[in-house]
Amino acid sequence: MTRPIAVLGGTGPEGFGLALRWAQAGETVIIGSRDAQRAQSAADKIRQRAGSSAKVSGAENVAACAAADLLVLTIPFESHATVLKQLKPALRPGSIVVDATVPLAASVGGRASRTLGVWQGSAAQETAELVPQGVAVVAAFQNVGSEMLNAEGAVDCDVIVCSDDAEASRTVRSLAIRIPGVRAIDGGKLENARVLEQITALMIGLNIRHKGHSGIRITGLPPAAYTGH
Amino acid sequence: MTRPIAVLGGTGPEGFGLALRWAQAGETVIIGSRDAQRAQSAADKIRQRAGSSAKVSGAENVAACAAADLLVLTIPFESHATVLKQLKPALRPGSIVVDATVPLAASVGGRASRTLGVWQGSAAQETAELVPQGVAVVAAFQNVGSEMLNAEGAVDCDVIVCSDDAEASRTVRSLAIRIPGVRAIDGGKLENARVLEQITALMIGLNIRHKGHSGIRITGLPPAAYTGH
Repeated sequence: MTRPIAVLGGTGPEGFGLALRWAQAGETVIIGSRDAQRAQSAADKIRQRAGSSAKVSGAENVAACAAADLLVLTIPFESHATVLKQLKPALRPGSIVVDATVPLAASVGGRASRTLGVWQGSAAQETAELVPQGVAVVAAFQNVGSEMLNAEGAVDCDVIVCSDDAEASRTVRSLAIRIPGVRAIDGGKLENARVLEQITALMIGLNIRHKGHSGIRITGLPPAAYTGH
Repeated sequence: MTRPIAVLGGTGPEGFGLALRWAQAGETVIIGSRDAQRAQSAADKIRQRAGSSAKVSGAENVAACAAADLLVLTIPFESHATVLKQLKPALRPGSIVVDATVPLAASVGGRASRTLGVWQGSAAQETAELVPQGVAVVAAFQNVGSEMLNAEGAVDCDVIVCSDDAEASRTVRSLAIRIPGVRAIDGGKLENARVLEQITALMIGLNIRHKGHSGIRITGLPPAAYTGH
C-alpha cells in the first residue's frame, strides 16, 4: 500500500500487534493514542522490533486520524463511541475506518467471554452510524488475537472482512494479507460483523479454559475465496 | 459407545449425514422423524452406504426417543419447541439431548445467513428450559455442514461442544470424534451455544457468497484441548 495506516488505540496489545506486523511488512504506520507521548513510545518499540527503517510514528488519536485516510480502530468498547465522536471532524469522505472493536462485557465489569448487546447489531455497525457520510466502514481483525500478532512467525488465523463498500473491503483484505499466515475472506455485508464480534468472545473463553491463544480458519471454500495463499 | 443414538429429524440432510457417519463408525443409530415410514426409508439408504452390517433403524420421533438415552436434535427451528414438547414425556432423567439446531431467520421466511433472537439466548438454551429435570443438554454440531457429512472422506471441521454438564459434554466429544477428521473442543457452558449458532449463519453466508461448503478449525490451543487427533 502507498497510503499510511493510522492504528487508533495502537498502544494496546491488539493495535500494537497489528501496527508491528504492518511496519514489518514495510507499510507506513501511525500509532494513535489519547496520549501522544505514549503513542511515540509505542512507535519506538515497534522500530526496535521491525528495524530502524520501519516507517512508524506516534501521534494523538485525532492528529493520527488527520494524517491518514485508512484508519484501524482497536479501542476498548467503553471508549468506542466517545473516540469516534472525537475523530468525526478529522474524518474525510473517501476514508476507510476499519473496526476491530469487540463489545466485550468486560467493558462494564463483566466477563471477556461474553458480549454486550449493541443496539445497532455490532460495534462496527455503531461505527457506521457515527462516521460522516462518504466514510466507508469495514469490520475485520476481531478474531486475530494480540498474542499471535505480537509473537514471532506466521499468524495461524483467517481474517473475515465485512463491509457494505466492496472496494473498501478489497482494500482491507489486501491489508490483512500483509500479515504473514493470514488469509482474508470476504464475509459480505457489515451486518455480519456481529458474528465476528461474538466469535472473539467464544475464543477468549477457549483461551481461558484451555490456556492457549486461539485463532480460526475457515475450511471448505474454493481457492478464489481466500485472498492471499 | 454402547448406547444407541437417536437422531431426531434424521431424514433432513444434517441429521442424515450425522447418522450416516455414526453408522459407518459402527454405532447403533435410530433415525427419528415425524413419519416412521420416512425414517425407515432413510435408515435403508444409510444401510446402502454404510454396509448391510450397519446398526441403523428408523422410527417415529417419540418412539426413537423412548429407545435411546442419547438424543441428537437436528430439526428446523420452526419445529424445535413443538418437537421438544412432544418428546418431553419420553425423556428420562440421565438422558442427554444434543442440540444442533440453529435459529435461522429462514424459519420465518427470512435469510439462512441471519439468525433470529431467541429469548433464552440460543436454541440450545431454549431446549434446556423445555426438557425435564435431570436431562442434560449439550450444544454441538451446528457448524458441521450437511454437505461435508454426506460427502465421502474426512470432515474438515472442528466441533465445539457446550454444556453445563461436564460428563455429558465429555460423552458428546467422544461421539463427535467418531466422525473422521473431526476434532472436538470443550467450549464451556451451554450459554456459549449462542455463538456456535451464529457462526452457522455466517458460514451459510460464506457458502452462498463463495459457492463452497465451509467448516471451521480452531487453531492455537494446546493439544490437550482437542479430543481426537
